[in-house]
Amino acid sequence: MTRILYSLCGRDENRPFSPHCWKVVMALQHKGLEFIERPVPFTEVPNVENGFSKTVPVLRDGDLLIRDSFDIALYLEETYPNRPSLFGGEGGKALSRFVEGYAQMLVHPVLTRLAVKDIHDMLDEKDQAYFRESRESRLGKKLEDFAAMKPDAAASLVAQLEPMRHMLKFQSYLGGESPLFADYILFGALQWLRITTGSLSLPPDHSVAIWFERCLDLFDGKGRAVA
Amino acid sequence: MTRILYSLCGRDENRPFSPHCWKVVMALQHKGLEFIERPVPFTEVPNVENGFSKTVPVLRDGDLLIRDSFDIALYLEETYPNRPSLFGGEGGKALSRFVEGYAQMLVHPVLTRLAVKDIHDMLDEKDQAYFRESRESRLGKKLEDFAAMKPDAAASLVAQLEPMRHMLKFQSYLGGESPLFADYILFGALQWLRITTGSLSLPPDHSVAIWFERCLDLFDGKGRAVA
Repeated sequence: MTRILYSLCGRDENRPFSPHCWKVVMALQHKGLEFIERPVPFTEVPNVENGFSKTVPVLRDGDLLIRDSFDIALYLEETYPNRPSLFGGEGGKALSRFVEGYAQMLVHPVLTRLAVKDIHDMLDEKDQAYFRESRESRLGKKLEDFAAMKPDAAASLVAQLEPMRHMLKFQSYLGGESPLFADYILFGALQWLRITTGSLSLPPDHSVAIWFERCLDLFDGKGRAVA
Repeated sequence: MTRILYSLCGRDENRPFSPHCWKVVMALQHKGLEFIERPVPFTEVPNVENGFSKTVPVLRDGDLLIRDSFDIALYLEETYPNRPSLFGGEGGKALSRFVEGYAQMLVHPVLTRLAVKDIHDMLDEKDQAYFRESRESRLGKKLEDFAAMKPDAAASLVAQLEPMRHMLKFQSYLGGESPLFADYILFGALQWLRITTGSLSLPPDHSVAIWFERCLDLFDGKGRAVA
């Protein structure tokens, strides 16, 4: 049985950076499942597994193919119920979808402003052309215009992370005493920022920065191994 | 055995409006527990149960007194485990603390801008003096200055509710197919806005407005009965 995770990289395939793929890396580790990671550049995604999906992550689990990070987490929970739970019950599963909404709708837009130029610079030439055109069209700005906005974006990040800071006054992880998939959703977002920009843009004593360090230590430092 | 919920009101004790107290009203209904609600004005809160708490809600359950909406929900879950769960398991309990953070840190500040003058106008004279002084000091503005900011605040509300809109593409409630305490956290926030301003400040076809209507219908329209 071969388990393959297709993820996303730039010129250096040893530095996969997609937030959604990191969620799945952590979920597979959480379940204690072995896998081979195959990072591909943006413009190769449509060729993964004969065009199975327009986006990564894509997981091959034996004969099965699954796309979308949340659907992959649901699949892993259902297929490997005797391994550690990713959701901690039905309530946790339902509320994880809200955490996904928070990450994607309130946190990712700020991270994009912080990281978009650095992401571009990590790509090979073919991907750079695709990335610049698609992102400048979507964001309505030149990639170079984002550098001047970094201080504002860093302040916005602190503001948008206030719900996390509140939660961390009461517990060590979104999942409580130990992490759940909801933690990996936010971890993936900040790991994306860390790998692409080299920094979290947070004060090191911010409780979210300290929580993130705890996540980097999980699974023998799986997240910390990519920098 | 007498169960008493102390909540918050203005001149009209039939229109309790505190978001935190509404969470507990819904949690008690969810558990199918009978109770008497005793709304008090702001300046009477310090006299509730011989000064037990600086804030409401306060729940008396027989000989026990409990303060803080989240602590009350935890108490109810532990004390009445055979009635419908408020959290749907340990994962749901942990993630509900994050939902509390989202509501208080990102949604409540916007609701305050929308409702603060209307809240003032609902209070009796003694409470109005206390409320104006404490709120103008905390917010750094005259209460009258908030009226002009309402259109901006309404736009901010739509933006801050994006995580809810994302979640509602997949399920009917934060809790999944049926509501959990996490739903009552957000319901309490918007019920506060509805009772104090008479409106949700959302387009009626917004998925959060539709979810809110579903919540108003719960428990024989308990929330809808106050307008």
